[in-house]
Amino acid sequence: MTLTDIFEKIDSNHKRYVQELVELLSIPSVSTYSRHKGDVQRAGEWVVNMCRRLGMEARLYPTAGHPVVYASHCPHPDRPTLLIYGHYDVQPPEPVDEWLTPPFQPTVRDGFVYARGASDDKGQFLTYLKAIEVVMAVRGEVPINVKVLVEGEEEIGSPHLGDFLRRHKDLLKADAIAISDGSQFAPDVPAITYGLRGLAYFQLDVTGPRVDLHSGSFGGLVMNPIQALSAILCSLKEGGDRVAVPGFYDDVADMAPWEREEMESLPLDLANLKEYLGVEVLCGEEGYSPMERKTARPTLDINGVWGGFAGEGAKTVIPSKAGAKVSMRLVPNQDPDKIAGLFRAHVAKVCPPGVQLKVTHLHSAQPVLVSRDLPQVQAAARAIHTGFGKDPVFIREGGSIPIVNLFQEELGLDAILLLGWGRPDDGAHSPNERFSLEDFRRGIRSAVALLYELAGEGA
Amino acid sequence: MTLTDIFEKIDSNHKRYVQELVELLSIPSVSTYSRHKGDVQRAGEWVVNMCRRLGMEARLYPTAGHPVVYASHCPHPDRPTLLIYGHYDVQPPEPVDEWLTPPFQPTVRDGFVYARGASDDKGQFLTYLKAIEVVMAVRGEVPINVKVLVEGEEEIGSPHLGDFLRRHKDLLKADAIAISDGSQFAPDVPAITYGLRGLAYFQLDVTGPRVDLHSGSFGGLVMNPIQALSAILCSLKEGGDRVAVPGFYDDVADMAPWEREEMESLPLDLANLKEYLGVEVLCGEEGYSPMERKTARPTLDINGVWGGFAGEGAKTVIPSKAGAKVSMRLVPNQDPDKIAGLFRAHVAKVCPPGVQLKVTHLHSAQPVLVSRDLPQVQAAARAIHTGFGKDPVFIREGGSIPIVNLFQEELGLDAILLLGWGRPDDGAHSPNERFSLEDFRRGIRSAVALLYELAGEGA
Repeated sequence: MTLTDIFEKIDSNHKRYVQELVELLSIPSVSTYSRHKGDVQRAGEWVVNMCRRLGMEARLYPTAGHPVVYASHCPHPDRPTLLIYGHYDVQPPEPVDEWLTPPFQPTVRDGFVYARGASDDKGQFLTYLKAIEVVMAVRGEVPINVKVLVEGEEEIGSPHLGDFLRRHKDLLKADAIAISDGSQFAPDVPAITYGLRGLAYFQLDVTGPRVDLHSGSFGGLVMNPIQALSAILCSLKEGGDRVAVPGFYDDVADMAPWEREEMESLPLDLANLKEYLGVEVLCGEEGYSPMERKTARPTLDINGVWGGFAGEGAKTVIPSKAGAKVSMRLVPNQDPDKIAGLFRAHVAKVCPPGVQLKVTHLHSAQPVLVSRDLPQVQAAARAIHTGFGKDPVFIREGGSIPIVNLFQEELGLDAILLLGWGRPDDGAHSPNERFSLEDFRRGIRSAVALLYELAGEGA
Repeated sequence: MTLTDIFEKIDSNHKRYVQELVELLSIPSVSTYSRHKGDVQRAGEWVVNMCRRLGMEARLYPTAGHPVVYASHCPHPDRPTLLIYGHYDVQPPEPVDEWLTPPFQPTVRDGFVYARGASDDKGQFLTYLKAIEVVMAVRGEVPINVKVLVEGEEEIGSPHLGDFLRRHKDLLKADAIAISDGSQFAPDVPAITYGLRGLAYFQLDVTGPRVDLHSGSFGGLVMNPIQALSAILCSLKEGGDRVAVPGFYDDVADMAPWEREEMESLPLDLANLKEYLGVEVLCGEEGYSPMERKTARPTLDINGVWGGFAGEGAKTVIPSKAGAKVSMRLVPNQDPDKIAGLFRAHVAKVCPPGVQLKVTHLHSAQPVLVSRDLPQVQAAARAIHTGFGKDPVFIREGGSIPIVNLFQEELGLDAILLLGWGRPDDGAHSPNERFSLEDFRRGIRSAVALLYELAGEGA
């Protein structure tokens, strides 16, 4: 039985696979709405039953929130183990009016299935279950060990996943984890994401006079908290849009020339991007390309600012308080805690006299860089070549993925395979979310190939 | 009949005057609450009836809002005319819980009458009516011509006063206007306010990307509107807390050395002021004293700022929009329109690329400086000396008084006599507002003396 035979079986089963996906997509498993708690549970049970039907041991683990599906099939003590991650919960469908067909009545048109959760993440994680199914059907077992972890709280920030990982370290032991919860670089440009930026997120609270003051009576006499805050915020960047926090760039691992070259060869359509963003000019750090700026260079953004009067018309007030949210995207080898120290020292130094400054460190994430030399990564690349008929590009993402940090920190997993089967315009989190049936098919093929590649039985 | 005799009559009538004030204060004429519309009307009628009882011609003029009381007694075509302004409406009493006695059950204790509107402005404008009454009673007529204008919408911004002034220019013709709606410099330090700062108030709206963006995916690629706004806000001030808008100080009329000296001799308690403001250090423009900074120097304040995420926790967003309210306090001879032009040119120049900036000019007020050489001002100073037993200090206020601008612009009145009988700690707009009965008495005495001084029959 060759991969070609299995791929033929995938094609002949395709209709049934789509029917099953439609069935799962019909369950409105919106994790953030308590009124959908039963639906979320039902979706979890659907996944458990599906795993059992494939011949895996499966159960639903309760958590303090929505349950976690865990299933395994580990027939080979001497072979590698792949952990597969997915989530069966979905974003709220709102605004429902903007959907052409109802979000939980999956509809196929023009080669796409339209429904909330189609691409994020039901359609994507189902590819692994269908891959396991078809391999089990043909071969009686998978050529490696597989463990499946599908949670129900990803869209609300995975509040109980860390605890679950800590409690089940041994159960979840694996040599690699596959996560298909993103997208190809562009349609028909499959990708492996090997880098994620980290994060250090702060709140600044500036307090001046004890109460709001009349700016006529006291203007000119006290430091205005918004003025002080603006001075601090201004001090965070310098010419060429560089972050001006002293020491900020000290630990940045520059990309090798080959990596920069590779990144520049990615087909990034700047005109399209500007139109999408609605800006006339792109900005960013001097000396780096747009692709580098948004993925491989650290940045600083002010995420929010507030203070004083924001209503209609004019109110002549000197506010007592003002504040801002400021976050830095970090790259290897920057450490969020070290950056936090530098940030605190800098803002304390530049804060003008006459106000009190409070700095709160709200959130951190380590930057992630998966070594492309890892055999599991190379196996994934070959599997995608087999499944998609073309080599994947290697990309870095500008954001963080909290669950990736969890898997690194709690399970010590280095071989993190971020394999997005979807497309950037699938509309995850938007109305009319969709998933290409061709991507569904290629995802299943790639997942099958990955099982074989990790077993050393590649095409 | 000398002033001394009249003052004795004031003393012997004092109890009745207070009873009448208590009666007026019992009417909850809160102009901003539509449920008090009838009470506001009733307070206006009370004032009309009081004026008629004194022998004045009086009527209530309807407006599109609350009515205006107008009364006059003009027996001397060849003598000067004094226009007296006041307002019979009051601020809302909230928070009512914090009043020791109910806001509309006037209570006398420790020499003060406590009620909403006691000092602002019922107690203060009533001094003029009682002065006219006592002079009429003693002499049969006042020695000059008097016109009384008491409006019912001051606490909601006098929305219909300008229209009323424009329609009744001839009726309101006068040689001076007396306004007692403020306070002495300090208890027992009576004052004449001869300067007010002007105002130029703007809103800045900065627009970047067409929608809020994920700061992970796009951080480093687009100009963040809050960053652009912060750069603009920062550029508005330079070292020594000077306004950095080019040309801003060009038309500033510096104070003469004698005026600065006089200002420095005012008893300003800096330790008290800092405690009141709740700040450890006072700030402001280098080279000027606190008193100058808050009254005689132009300033710039950011009155509000907004943009992006201001909720609890962390949201990694690059907002599409950010905005701010910015106002400048102006001094003679700065012109709000000229300043607006300078401000617009400056912010347009410093706005970074990658965002759109919209500047809206929301509000203007001309600075006011009443010449102390005017005979009417000198008459008022002598009247206060007679009424309070001490010379007034001459002060500038840091704020604007919109009605003063209206009287200047609509009636062309230069001789604006801002004579506050109240005290800075009377609690106008606060719970437990009060008015000193001694100030009430001295206000009536001073008002009487003013009628005589303006007639050239001073003490």
